[in-house]
Amino acid sequence: MIGEDFNRRTALNLMGLGLAGAASGALAQAPGRKLGYAIVGLGGYATRQIMPQFRNCRSSRLVALVSGTPEKLARYGDEYGIPKTHRYSYANYDRIRDNPDIDIVYVVLPNNMHAEYSIRASQAGKHVMCEKPMAVSAAECEAMIAAAKRANRKLMIGYRSRFEPHNVLAIQLARQAHVGRTRIVTAEHGFNAQPNQWRLDKALAGGGSLMDIGIYSLNAARYLTGEEPVSVTAVESTDKSDPRFRTVEDQINFMLRFPSGAIADCVSSYSSNHNRYRVVGTDGWIDLEPATSYEGQRMRIRKDGKEAVRDVPPGPVNQFVGQLDHLSECALTGRQPIVAGEEGLADLRLIEAIYRSAREGRQIKLA
Amino acid sequence: MIGEDFNRRTALNLMGLGLAGAASGALAQAPGRKLGYAIVGLGGYATRQIMPQFRNCRSSRLVALVSGTPEKLARYGDEYGIPKTHRYSYANYDRIRDNPDIDIVYVVLPNNMHAEYSIRASQAGKHVMCEKPMAVSAAECEAMIAAAKRANRKLMIGYRSRFEPHNVLAIQLARQAHVGRTRIVTAEHGFNAQPNQWRLDKALAGGGSLMDIGIYSLNAARYLTGEEPVSVTAVESTDKSDPRFRTVEDQINFMLRFPSGAIADCVSSYSSNHNRYRVVGTDGWIDLEPATSYEGQRMRIRKDGKEAVRDVPPGPVNQFVGQLDHLSECALTGRQPIVAGEEGLADLRLIEAIYRSAREGRQIKLA
Repeated sequence: MIGEDFNRRTALNLMGLGLAGAASGALAQAPGRKLGYAIVGLGGYATRQIMPQFRNCRSSRLVALVSGTPEKLARYGDEYGIPKTHRYSYANYDRIRDNPDIDIVYVVLPNNMHAEYSIRASQAGKHVMCEKPMAVSAAECEAMIAAAKRANRKLMIGYRSRFEPHNVLAIQLARQAHVGRTRIVTAEHGFNAQPNQWRLDKALAGGGSLMDIGIYSLNAARYLTGEEPVSVTAVESTDKSDPRFRTVEDQINFMLRFPSGAIADCVSSYSSNHNRYRVVGTDGWIDLEPATSYEGQRMRIRKDGKEAVRDVPPGPVNQFVGQLDHLSECALTGRQPIVAGEEGLADLRLIEAIYRSAREGRQIKLA
Repeated sequence: MIGEDFNRRTALNLMGLGLAGAASGALAQAPGRKLGYAIVGLGGYATRQIMPQFRNCRSSRLVALVSGTPEKLARYGDEYGIPKTHRYSYANYDRIRDNPDIDIVYVVLPNNMHAEYSIRASQAGKHVMCEKPMAVSAAECEAMIAAAKRANRKLMIGYRSRFEPHNVLAIQLARQAHVGRTRIVTAEHGFNAQPNQWRLDKALAGGGSLMDIGIYSLNAARYLTGEEPVSVTAVESTDKSDPRFRTVEDQINFMLRFPSGAIADCVSSYSSNHNRYRVVGTDGWIDLEPATSYEGQRMRIRKDGKEAVRDVPPGPVNQFVGQLDHLSECALTGRQPIVAGEEGLADLRLIEAIYRSAREGRQIKLA
């Protein structure tokens, strides 16, 4: 018990520094069972990025699959040795309630289905991991948080960068004023969207680049400053004659003003490639490019007039494993995830304000 | 005559590509006298950056000095061999009219004096080079343009980056869509302002970081896209308790929307160091950091998924020499400078709109 208490205290202390990866590390020696995950939605992100990671988890294992496509259930069920009793369609999804092997449900569906499938998982008594954006509206996020609370279960959002060592270090250095007091954050995320995918259908995605990739710029601005903006100001640019952008926005760039006086300048684009951010303080800057990719992050620091690459040692596990095990360990220990539902709600409130600012051509002040 | 015509045609063609430096080069063999410059204002930029460059000019020479400080007139007059007859105070400044050795007056005074001393130079029948910002208001710029026109003399603004090889190449590549159609330009300029200087006095400077250093972000966004914005949206952040910022703004960040749909995200700061820009096209990007420094520019290009440093050979002359000789050669040949008064006016109109947008918290549409 002393050991557990020590580990937990250490973890909480590290958490305060934003050292999520290290926090998971502090529990490395903690014995305990592996919690069982059900993956809901067998698209590319689930099958190529998430599912192969369970083999490296110490507190998580893959125990069930949910999909509307029988071929996928068969293929991935066989590949991962998931018994037929643990393969669900959307029709019998609610029967996960009766499967004690499933501790956590990971929702990796199109955005408009996040709220419904997360809430049903909470109602089934399961902890929930939900991909970002948490939902397509702040109201949906609030309902998800309420459902998890009623069920007395955890709700975490898939902000994987918080478990990636370069990002963890950038947060730590920025908040310790390693390059002085933060004045400007620039954050750019975008890619050239391929046509004919659910991301480009507003009914499914809830919005365009901002919902999908711009949310990385937004979330980074918040985690790097550790502050909540007092105003947002946005400009949209979408070529409506481009068949990709009939229902969703292409570019939407926005500025956030923080209580400290820092400003974040953020890019979100579906027609150009961006993956970087820079924290500019009074004495230099911290630059990540790529910043929030699956791998290959690179950090440069300018301080005292000198610029250098900062090598960051890999963590004991990668960001995907760190994220999966963090929720398992929160569920086991009763801790609140560092990226709980409230984090997703904060982003959705800002996303709604960003859209409103662009639409109305004015700054939106936040409560 | 055939030679001159050929040179002029070549120069105009190159000009169309934004190849200002190369355009000057096209006149390299052209014989002709050196035009005589009077430098007005003997501050650090004039004495350390501009005056030492005349020795490398082929069409320009330093012939006169104007200053309110007798010690400076004596010191620099002796250093540069300027006869006492060619040293002027502000009291007898208008007598430059009677000095046929002076062809061009270069105004390097605090911003609030640009208009008056440029107009008086035009009225004295001289061509004018004026530092940026051209003046402290668009109305002043219009008066300067009118005065030069009435006098039938040239008026050029000191946008030296247009004569710097990395910038010249960036313009050429961006407009040729080397990395695809331009979607986003990010441009950041700032430095940590030292207290107690005229730049921080609104009466002299006309404004804060935007007038002094943010104008580089603004001008770069325009020269890289080759477009004029249809709207500006700005956010200011100034700590009024900082004694440096009693009368002028610290940070003012702004977004420009262009007719093509491209957006520029621009930083202007007096409390953090920035000197970079990036043109992001549909197929990659062109990055300069530093971008608009006196020397040391570095270009990186990302294209087809590969990133590389692009070595840019130095031009026959540096940006300071290129700028000085460009006006001399325009005066000799009758050409319009590539950065004439209209260029400075365009920036001042936008600067006024940026201030208004920040003040009113809304997007300002431009005619």
